[in-house]
Amino acid sequence: MKPGHLKETHTRSGVEDACRPIHEILGRVGDKWSVLVVQLLGHGTMRFNELRRAIDGISQKMLTTTLRNLERDGFVSRKIYPTIPPRVEYSLTDLGSELLGPVKALAEWVDVNRERIDAARTRFDERS
Amino acid sequence: MKPGHLKETHTRSGVEDACRPIHEILGRVGDKWSVLVVQLLGHGTMRFNELRRAIDGISQKMLTTTLRNLERDGFVSRKIYPTIPPRVEYSLTDLGSELLGPVKALAEWVDVNRERIDAARTRFDERS
Repeated sequence: MKPGHLKETHTRSGVEDACRPIHEILGRVGDKWSVLVVQLLGHGTMRFNELRRAIDGISQKMLTTTLRNLERDGFVSRKIYPTIPPRVEYSLTDLGSELLGPVKALAEWVDVNRERIDAARTRFDERS
Repeated sequence: MKPGHLKETHTRSGVEDACRPIHEILGRVGDKWSVLVVQLLGHGTMRFNELRRAIDGISQKMLTTTLRNLERDGFVSRKIYPTIPPRVEYSLTDLGSELLGPVKALAEWVDVNRERIDAARTRFDERS
């Protein structure tokens, strides 16, 4: 019997349980491009090229992948108009609109606290 | 005069303004490992190796970088004990503890809505 080992296993498992929701977010809604796309579509329906222009540094392939994953998870719906070339429009689903709430709350927190973060950075860089 | 062009420029700029806080988050607190570390330290002070064991798949180098960035931004503080080998403990600062609020809210949203996300995935995969 190794109580120390048992205790450690128990602690680690508790930590993992507590973090499971975060793991879910990270796999599903937490990646950089997904959060940006959800935020942008919160302003209304957008076409593929509008999204691409609005997001600095995203490649066509990465935007395609991001939108496909968001559609798969039920946050974004896609509508194709049979024009030449086809027009493809993206918008938030009900689930996607609900996700906007906590995403915006996090965004606002960062906005409100930006000066404190900047000050911490300056102090750190002066020490280093 | 090209009103269409002007309108488009205006719209794009508006979208960028609205998303600036999100850009801030993504650069500062939104990356996968940072969110996990902040969440874990929300349970209390942890040593480097405890963090490493608790986070599946993180390398020593990535954890070092993540902790350094979180310290630089003022979310995490580091305390070194002059034992052999030195013991290094990490904990959330006041700023880091405040960040936990919106991070947890997002985590809870995902937890509550996990079944809806799973159902959307199943529907999508059946269509594809």
